[in-house]
Amino acid sequence: MPDQTPLPALPGIAFGGDYNPEQWPRETWQEDVRLMREAGVNLVSVGIFSWALLETAEGEFDFAWLDEVIDLLHANGIAVDLGTPTASPPAWFFAAHPDARVVTRDGTVMGFGSRGMASHSSPAYREAIVRIASALADRYGDHPAVVLWHVHNEYGVPVGEDYSEHSVRAFRGWLRERYGSLDALNAAWGTAFWGQHYTAWEHIGAPAAAPSVVNPAQRLDFQRFTDHQLRACFIAERDAIRARAPQPITTNFMANQSWTTDLWAWARDVDVVSDDHYLWAADEDAHIGLSIAADLSRSVGGGKPWILMEHSTSAVNWQPRNIAKRPGEMARNSLTHVARGSDAVLFFQWRAGRSGAEKFHSAMLPHAGTDSRVWREVVALGEGLSRLDAVVGSRVEADVAVLWDFESFWAQDLEWRPTEDLSHQERVRAFYERLWRDGVTVDFALPGHDLSRYRLVVAPAQYLLTAADAANLTRYVEGGGTLVVSYFSAVVDENDAVHPGGFLAPLRDALGVDVEEHLPLREGAAAAVEWSDGALLGADHWQESLRLHGADVVGAYAEGPAAGGAAITRHRHGAGTGWYISTRLDAEGLRAVLSDVYADAGVVASSTPDGLEVVRRRADDRTFLFAINHRDDDVTIDAVGRELLTGATASGSLVVPAGGVAVIETD
Amino acid sequence: MPDQTPLPALPGIAFGGDYNPEQWPRETWQEDVRLMREAGVNLVSVGIFSWALLETAEGEFDFAWLDEVIDLLHANGIAVDLGTPTASPPAWFFAAHPDARVVTRDGTVMGFGSRGMASHSSPAYREAIVRIASALADRYGDHPAVVLWHVHNEYGVPVGEDYSEHSVRAFRGWLRERYGSLDALNAAWGTAFWGQHYTAWEHIGAPAAAPSVVNPAQRLDFQRFTDHQLRACFIAERDAIRARAPQPITTNFMANQSWTTDLWAWARDVDVVSDDHYLWAADEDAHIGLSIAADLSRSVGGGKPWILMEHSTSAVNWQPRNIAKRPGEMARNSLTHVARGSDAVLFFQWRAGRSGAEKFHSAMLPHAGTDSRVWREVVALGEGLSRLDAVVGSRVEADVAVLWDFESFWAQDLEWRPTEDLSHQERVRAFYERLWRDGVTVDFALPGHDLSRYRLVVAPAQYLLTAADAANLTRYVEGGGTLVVSYFSAVVDENDAVHPGGFLAPLRDALGVDVEEHLPLREGAAAAVEWSDGALLGADHWQESLRLHGADVVGAYAEGPAAGGAAITRHRHGAGTGWYISTRLDAEGLRAVLSDVYADAGVVASSTPDGLEVVRRRADDRTFLFAINHRDDDVTIDAVGRELLTGATASGSLVVPAGGVAVIETD
Amino acid sequence: MPDQTPLPALPGIAFGGDYNPEQWPRETWQEDVRLMREAGVNLVSVGIFSWALLETAEGEFDFAWLDEVIDLLHANGIAVDLGTPTASPPAWFFAAHPDARVVTRDGTVMGFGSRGMASHSSPAYREAIVRIASALADRYGDHPAVVLWHVHNEYGVPVGEDYSEHSVRAFRGWLRERYGSLDALNAAWGTAFWGQHYTAWEHIGAPAAAPSVVNPAQRLDFQRFTDHQLRACFIAERDAIRARAPQPITTNFMANQSWTTDLWAWARDVDVVSDDHYLWAADEDAHIGLSIAADLSRSVGGGKPWILMEHSTSAVNWQPRNIAKRPGEMARNSLTHVARGSDAVLFFQWRAGRSGAEKFHSAMLPHAGTDSRVWREVVALGEGLSRLDAVVGSRVEADVAVLWDFESFWAQDLEWRPTEDLSHQERVRAFYERLWRDGVTVDFALPGHDLSRYRLVVAPAQYLLTAADAANLTRYVEGGGTLVVSYFSAVVDENDAVHPGGFLAPLRDALGVDVEEHLPLREGAAAAVEWSDGALLGADHWQESLRLHGADVVGAYAEGPAAGGAAITRHRHGAGTGWYISTRLDAEGLRAVLSDVYADAGVVASSTPDGLEVVRRRADDRTFLFAINHRDDDVTIDAVGRELLTGATASGSLVVPAGGVAVIETD
Repeated sequence: MPDQTPLPALPGIAFGGDYNPEQWPRETWQEDVRLMREAGVNLVSVGIFSWALLETAEGEFDFAWLDEVIDLLHANGIAVDLGTPTASPPAWFFAAHPDARVVTRDGTVMGFGSRGMASHSSPAYREAIVRIASALADRYGDHPAVVLWHVHNEYGVPVGEDYSEHSVRAFRGWLRERYGSLDALNAAWGTAFWGQHYTAWEHIGAPAAAPSVVNPAQRLDFQRFTDHQLRACFIAERDAIRARAPQPITTNFMANQSWTTDLWAWARDVDVVSDDHYLWAADEDAHIGLSIAADLSRSVGGGKPWILMEHSTSAVNWQPRNIAKRPGEMARNSLTHVARGSDAVLFFQWRAGRSGAEKFHSAMLPHAGTDSRVWREVVALGEGLSRLDAVVGSRVEADVAVLWDFESFWAQDLEWRPTEDLSHQERVRAFYERLWRDGVTVDFALPGHDLSRYRLVVAPAQYLLTAADAANLTRYVEGGGTLVVSYFSAVVDENDAVHPGGFLAPLRDALGVDVEEHLPLREGAAAAVEWSDGALLGADHWQESLRLHGADVVGAYAEGPAAGGAAITRHRHGAGTGWYISTRLDAEGLRAVLSDVYADAGVVASSTPDGLEVVRRRADDRTFLFAINHRDDDVTIDAVGRELLTGATASGSLVVPAGGVAVIETD
Repeated sequence: MPDQTPLPALPGIAFGGDYNPEQWPRETWQEDVRLMREAGVNLVSVGIFSWALLETAEGEFDFAWLDEVIDLLHANGIAVDLGTPTASPPAWFFAAHPDARVVTRDGTVMGFGSRGMASHSSPAYREAIVRIASALADRYGDHPAVVLWHVHNEYGVPVGEDYSEHSVRAFRGWLRERYGSLDALNAAWGTAFWGQHYTAWEHIGAPAAAPSVVNPAQRLDFQRFTDHQLRACFIAERDAIRARAPQPITTNFMANQSWTTDLWAWARDVDVVSDDHYLWAADEDAHIGLSIAADLSRSVGGGKPWILMEHSTSAVNWQPRNIAKRPGEMARNSLTHVARGSDAVLFFQWRAGRSGAEKFHSAMLPHAGTDSRVWREVVALGEGLSRLDAVVGSRVEADVAVLWDFESFWAQDLEWRPTEDLSHQERVRAFYERLWRDGVTVDFALPGHDLSRYRLVVAPAQYLLTAADAANLTRYVEGGGTLVVSYFSAVVDENDAVHPGGFLAPLRDALGVDVEEHLPLREGAAAAVEWSDGALLGADHWQESLRLHGADVVGAYAEGPAAGGAAITRHRHGAGTGWYISTRLDAEGLRAVLSDVYADAGVVASSTPDGLEVVRRRADDRTFLFAINHRDDDVTIDAVGRELLTGATASGSLVVPAGGVAVIETD
Repeated sequence: MPDQTPLPALPGIAFGGDYNPEQWPRETWQEDVRLMREAGVNLVSVGIFSWALLETAEGEFDFAWLDEVIDLLHANGIAVDLGTPTASPPAWFFAAHPDARVVTRDGTVMGFGSRGMASHSSPAYREAIVRIASALADRYGDHPAVVLWHVHNEYGVPVGEDYSEHSVRAFRGWLRERYGSLDALNAAWGTAFWGQHYTAWEHIGAPAAAPSVVNPAQRLDFQRFTDHQLRACFIAERDAIRARAPQPITTNFMANQSWTTDLWAWARDVDVVSDDHYLWAADEDAHIGLSIAADLSRSVGGGKPWILMEHSTSAVNWQPRNIAKRPGEMARNSLTHVARGSDAVLFFQWRAGRSGAEKFHSAMLPHAGTDSRVWREVVALGEGLSRLDAVVGSRVEADVAVLWDFESFWAQDLEWRPTEDLSHQERVRAFYERLWRDGVTVDFALPGHDLSRYRLVVAPAQYLLTAADAANLTRYVEGGGTLVVSYFSAVVDENDAVHPGGFLAPLRDALGVDVEEHLPLREGAAAAVEWSDGALLGADHWQESLRLHGADVVGAYAEGPAAGGAAITRHRHGAGTGWYISTRLDAEGLRAVLSDVYADAGVVASSTPDGLEVVRRRADDRTFLFAINHRDDDVTIDAVGRELLTGATASGSLVVPAGGVAVIETD
């Protein structure tokens, strides 16, 4: 298993994409490898959706065409990331096992003809995925072209929850294991509420559609169970391959858009973290979301390098308006990923497919062919990446951690929260964006992690916080850390039950404050805060009625139901400081507050202009400074060393052109 | 059964709330009764969701814990409103009777894990509810703490219509009873339209999802049937308890938000009317909606005192934005209910629950504990209410009736009406709000009621009006009454069939006008009316082409498709006057028109400032004037007598403080 | 079968409507025929929803009441369009054949009680429709009153797609017939994408709800299949009638609102084209949509006269806001239909029904009776139409064709297109409206038609264009035609597969340009084009990156992602000219561009004021000029001849009054 580099079999940054030769005649394959070489492609992923062509009937395999493809790639010096095709079982599988189909929450049985796995709890499916994964590993485990195994595709998308009978049965078993006794389950779920007390395991079902809101603890457990079942499928395939093949094994995450899976747990089970990233086209600053996903991918892997498994050369096809990337944008996106730890730049997909649901998805080789902006930029990117061999294996370090907790997000997203305006992702993005614009590199972390190495920990939306994790955060402050907690945090425990003592009670010591009452606002209402310097900070959506337990009020509400009451507090606790922000500050408000927070934490904001993104990767003996210029004008930065993409030498300063990227190596 | 007071067993205003000791350990019970006494609580509702803990398997009962709770309450002087837990059957019940689950209109079978009754037509459910109700009545019928039975919970919410096979079978039986013959049913439903003629009872189904709009008379009958089935469940429980226990029996209505049940019919079947009230948080003047619900609760009970069974101390948890009540608001809400006839102020719930779907619902004892605004206001309210013993049993009298007819609302809400802008509730609120701001106390009534005691009757939205009821209204005018009818009224009969002679034909004599054609407007279009004094009254959504049959035109359309035509008419008929308003007047328009209507009717508007709500309760020998000040400033009112909450004496005038309430007793 | 006139059995314009005597007592029938004669009615449609009353149990018929109705009509000189009632099978049919019910895409089984046919693939339904159609033809085939057969009602509405087992089985059979081999199907559907390869016909299903987007080629084929099955039902009835009765046979299309059926194919299978037309009330210029539908009805029938089978005297009942027609509007609507080729003016419905889902639909005889504006206008219309006998059989000719291709529309409407802002109907309307306002009469056509007789062909939205059709369009240009193609055209072939060579490649020769990349815009973004004269043309939603292959750039993007690039091109090819417009021009932009296009094509725009609609029908020896004045002021037009409605003589000019119509006959 790799240590410092995710793909030791490759000498430099991996470059390439998903390759689907089965969609094309053989003559096209020759053109493909010729153009791959022209573009500098050194790794492609094959076989991801090829089950029906590889196992043509149960237990009957046809590997001839894939042999040919892999040999052809190998002969051209292109390595293979070999997929297991289990995200899309063949038609014959569903015909033989109609009970393996996924059932939605309202009882609709999902049909064939799309993509999407079978019920992840179906015994027949479990058996079939091990069979095909084993057969592939048997055949290609010692093929010199194969450097990585790519199990399945984007677990959790498009199928997460499954309400089939297989799933219900498995859920009961999972609950038995988790709780041991019905008494424990009844207590954890609070079944005394609304008369849901259980007297037999067989009476428990999945939280299907019901006349009103279903027990939130049951729903939260069903999300945990769903994640567990998906991961169990992965592990079954992984172990079958491991028993037969030596290469590292991954599955592609979707850190930017799917939160069905707990990536912290998944990262422990893969050999290599890999991620698929697609911009949200409606977001004019989608590159900030990209940085979040990249930092998250690095963080779940423990800070090591990782692989960008898929992104797009230009538009995708599944958003309401699929905006094409502008000239230079693909290169910036690619190099931001590298800057934040990826040792690969891979795309979905090599060649745009003529048919099917994704024919309007961009590719390295677009429908327009090689006489196209996209192709020219692909070739240039391959050329540039080939100069970054030295970057491989270097790491990103951060002084600041932002808490990112899937279980808390799952819990908060359940029904009947105080206001529909609450959004954990909005708050994570708001705090992250402020840090990004201030040039502060961050890791993501769980509240239970050892946080002592961070100067600053930010909890933008920690609705669910266990007593143990609260104690961990309190110890962090006691030990000298600076903790910033945003509103609607520390509300419930692991069972979505309100903490005894009320909202925020578990952090009362660390923050010197707790919450008497939530005060969500009417639509459009404002909640400005008077800041220590007399300025008004913009805020909306939410206020709280706070009770002080030692904290200082550094901002008070100037309007709204809590007018005159504390809005933002600061508390010295042990050797550290705990901040609490009880409303949704706007970007300027966050800038003002975080400026004071930085002073407490000893964090220094960057002085580069807004829109120039600067990130450093460090190896033992040198540093790589990535400067990605999202602005429309050139920016001059302080730099000493060698600019790797152009080979230029920087002896004090360097111009990063508008829309361009520089990578400066310094010893 | 009570006559003048709903709860003769209690000496004063009932004060307390839903109490769920089963959600808490025994040590908490002791704290509960101590704090209840501190707050002046004298009545709590228990057992509403306790079925699974009381009947642990079919026919096996465990009353020990409930014995303990009731004895503890009794020992502390707190009376009990004992619930039957039939709104939430246990898991074992559904496991044994999967066919008792509710089915939605599109065929989805509703699962367990939420709240909500089983199919109200399921024989197994009917048997089970009688068994548990009987067992409770057997055990507690003679317990001195028990002063009231609380059957089920909020019938119709969350489950009204049910499309299960049990329901379809019962529907057929109900139709047979209603119509006697298929010929009568075919005629009533107009099955010649779209080829729906029936030749066998077994061919008739519930109006499930179909390719296009389903027969509206069938849908209307299914709503009647649904109401009937729910009420039959109530009656089955009620009769089982009556045979075993002497206390009065109620079930809690939801006059403010659910119109699945015909409360006029239900009020005849309960011993005591009780109502649950929750503010619509998005409505800045939600206290006007509160007054509507309170007046409706009183009206359906025939004008007698009634019980406010549930309301909230602060926010609820199930609206899009759950706005917390501001200081003083809970007291104003509570005393408005008392002012409008309630002899109780009860809450959902005593203590905020840590788990389950409603953990963010406010309570008398919030998550924040006793060091909280809410708790302090609860204690003050209990103290205040304890001074209102004399109010108990006194009645509210009104000179004006507003028609409120559930069957008409059901019919109007069916599909394919002339415009989706039509809303009966909007018009009821608009007329009621004008009367409220004018300080005019109103009753609600059905069009078939004896209305002769009212100076004025307003029909804001009487889409369905039977010929008999139209004759009743006509007699009312003939006898000297003033009748105001708003547009889209008297359109159809009891089968949702257009009246012969056209729209409004049944009221042609009373109003001197009928409607040639509906003229709904395009979105955003205006329909201003030129009033008798030349002013333009604002209006939108709707116009009609009127044909005059003797009425005077007092307002003509200044614009829109009916420009130049009659908009508002006035007609002397017999000793009375009939007004017709054919468009959606805005608030100012209604003020102008109702001002002239008041003159006809001899109704006098109040001169107190807008936002000071004044209502009187009368006993044989004295009057209680409630003045609720919703304004931000103090208001001085004319008053002579004793202010009960403070004990102050008013000899001519009294200051009602901003946001405060005064209750002046005058002999 | 008729040649020049659709209804040779009638001497003049047919006038009347749907007549449902079964909804009324016999005494009303007498009043009906009296009033029909008063209004000049000469044709009514009966029996359309009468199955349950005609076949009271399987195979048991009761024709007595229908005999009486038809005899009564005949005795009064009113001809009959006799319906087959197969759009609404009786309750007994569904009770006997529950498997004949329609199933939705998500598996919901559609219930009874509405309208809507059974599964069009159900063998029992197929048998039943032939039985009732045969029985009717046997009984009335030689009745002198019957002049036309009206099979079914509005095929495709409300039921198009059906996912029942019968449908799935039939789909497999249809696919086998279409493709012959699974290899051909796998290739056409591109099943290599997402692993959908089929190895057995029985594994193929309907494209039911699935975890993600279903194969678009499968969905497109399912729409073709659905259309085929509906038409097969029609043909089964038609052939049963043809074997027994001599009259022409039609079924009523819905050219204005349903595109489930390919009317080009249907028109080949009916003896007479007939159409139902209902205005879209939200559209203030709905009369332009009416002209589209009328021109389409004429075009699918090959340019021959056709029949307006249904329209409304005033409001309909099924739109969000059902706007009543204003005085004169019904006459304008009726005569626009005649102007554009209809030899009938028929209504749904004769008499407003009291019951059922459509009670608020207007009628010739409204609920308000004969003392009503509507009735008076109906009588006047009947009188006017009686003067237009000479118009019958005359034809409309056009110099311009607009492409209208149902298969392309079906394909474009599938999921995951580049932006949700794409709308083929919006573009068709935009181009048509410009031509309408310019007084240019158009035909609709398919891209594979012989287009050589048109000076100008406009392709507003030809997303799907086969290589063969592209070649046809190219030949059209080569032969001297002027072709205008709007964006997102020629993207895919008949299998929804992108054309080899990229977007627009098949028209590269004709247009001298192709499309490198789609550039959909963010919401609200603008895309102005700098026109040849320096003016900025407004545009939004969409840009493209064009590659020139010989075309001249006549408009370049002034802003947006394509700023500076070509927006509108013009290319001389052979003897003709090809225009390409790569963005969504607004109305003014289209005016500017089409003005230059007209010059190329030799098309002359009319000089009459905007809102005066002028259309000509031509017989061998004379011309009928219809002038419909949609304006609020009188318009004087050049005219020589006899104005038929008033009998006035025009010798040079004629005043068409505001809101009025003139029909001038010129030899």
